[in-house]
Amino acid sequence: MSATVSYMSMSLDGFIAGPDAGPGNGLGDGGERLHEWVLTGAANDDGTGTPALVQGGVNGRIVDEFMSTGAVVAGRGTFEPAGGWGGDHHDGVPIFILSRRDPGIDITAWPLVTYLDDVGTAMAQAKEAAGDRNVLVHGAAVTQLALAAGVLDELEIHLVPVLLGGGRRLFGDQGPHDVELDRTRVLHGEDGVTHLHFRVRHGVEADQSSTRRVS
Amino acid sequence: MSATVSYMSMSLDGFIAGPDAGPGNGLGDGGERLHEWVLTGAANDDGTGTPALVQGGVNGRIVDEFMSTGAVVAGRGTFEPAGGWGGDHHDGVPIFILSRRDPGIDITAWPLVTYLDDVGTAMAQAKEAAGDRNVLVHGAAVTQLALAAGVLDELEIHLVPVLLGGGRRLFGDQGPHDVELDRTRVLHGEDGVTHLHFRVRHGVEADQSSTRRVS
Repeated sequence: MSATVSYMSMSLDGFIAGPDAGPGNGLGDGGERLHEWVLTGAANDDGTGTPALVQGGVNGRIVDEFMSTGAVVAGRGTFEPAGGWGGDHHDGVPIFILSRRDPGIDITAWPLVTYLDDVGTAMAQAKEAAGDRNVLVHGAAVTQLALAAGVLDELEIHLVPVLLGGGRRLFGDQGPHDVELDRTRVLHGEDGVTHLHFRVRHGVEADQSSTRRVS
Repeated sequence: MSATVSYMSMSLDGFIAGPDAGPGNGLGDGGERLHEWVLTGAANDDGTGTPALVQGGVNGRIVDEFMSTGAVVAGRGTFEPAGGWGGDHHDGVPIFILSRRDPGIDITAWPLVTYLDDVGTAMAQAKEAAGDRNVLVHGAAVTQLALAAGVLDELEIHLVPVLLGGGRRLFGDQGPHDVELDRTRVLHGEDGVTHLHFRVRHGVEADQSSTRRVS
């Protein structure tokens, strides 16, 4: 059974980007720290070159997992600053971008990319497109919207052992409440990153669950 | 070597109490969910009675650990609503309460309790009193102050698989930044609670660490 799974790197204090994020500082101050685990060092001895996705080990296993998904759902705030991944996130799978406005970049040459304004529709179409593979959900806004709409099936949090002290949160102060999760996997990644996997219990509120457990 | 260790139950979205906490609702709406793991059910079949601390298993091991500490440091906001634990948190160990004001409850009959207004002094005196045992640090405000002052050695986060959606956070938006942690233990507790233990790297900033790793 295919699942929509949000993969997000988060600091222990809950941030997915550091303070003062903006054009030219997309991850915010110190925010690149959250993504060190997914990248190997620069390609060349002199420090130049493009870092590559890590291979092998626990962290590599997680990378393999999200790069094996059958569709991608992201927000325009994730997609457009990343140059739209050149129109192909991985392996030519369909990409659904959640946005209330017209695309801010030219997508006419990218047949894999679809802009949509409803998270339920985006998730449904992505699941359909992914077949029996999972759907990679990426970005804080999309994750929050999907949680609130009850269309996020699973969460994979890459918990990075650092306190950023401020920035952009994955979970805000007006989020969906009393959402119970089942912890389905904990992997001890390299460099102190802990990969925590949860299944969202749809339609079960914490209070109800708590009452059942006590009685 | 004795360490100051903050033990805190936290929801995946970062809350240590639910929304609308206040007199008569100390843990906020839904906040008792965060402490279910530490308690066994009500004592009597009819649901009345006082819950007891859980024994055995992984969760019981964590309880044993923090109940074996040699001193306690907490804030008045933790201590006073709890009735000052009757003047004895456990085993007659000294209790240091961080407060800028005079006690809001009568502590004259409690020789174990000392009020202090400086987190550095509180931690130093608690370590001295604890000897070779660790110091139990409890409460969000004290944890934040101790982190900012560089006098918190370790963090034990009991990560509870629920989203509360709002409330009181352990880590706020103006916290200490670029604090690197070493993950020293991950225990898979019962009921989906994950106990994450970290050592705080004193005086090491994320940026420096990152530079060293790349070069």
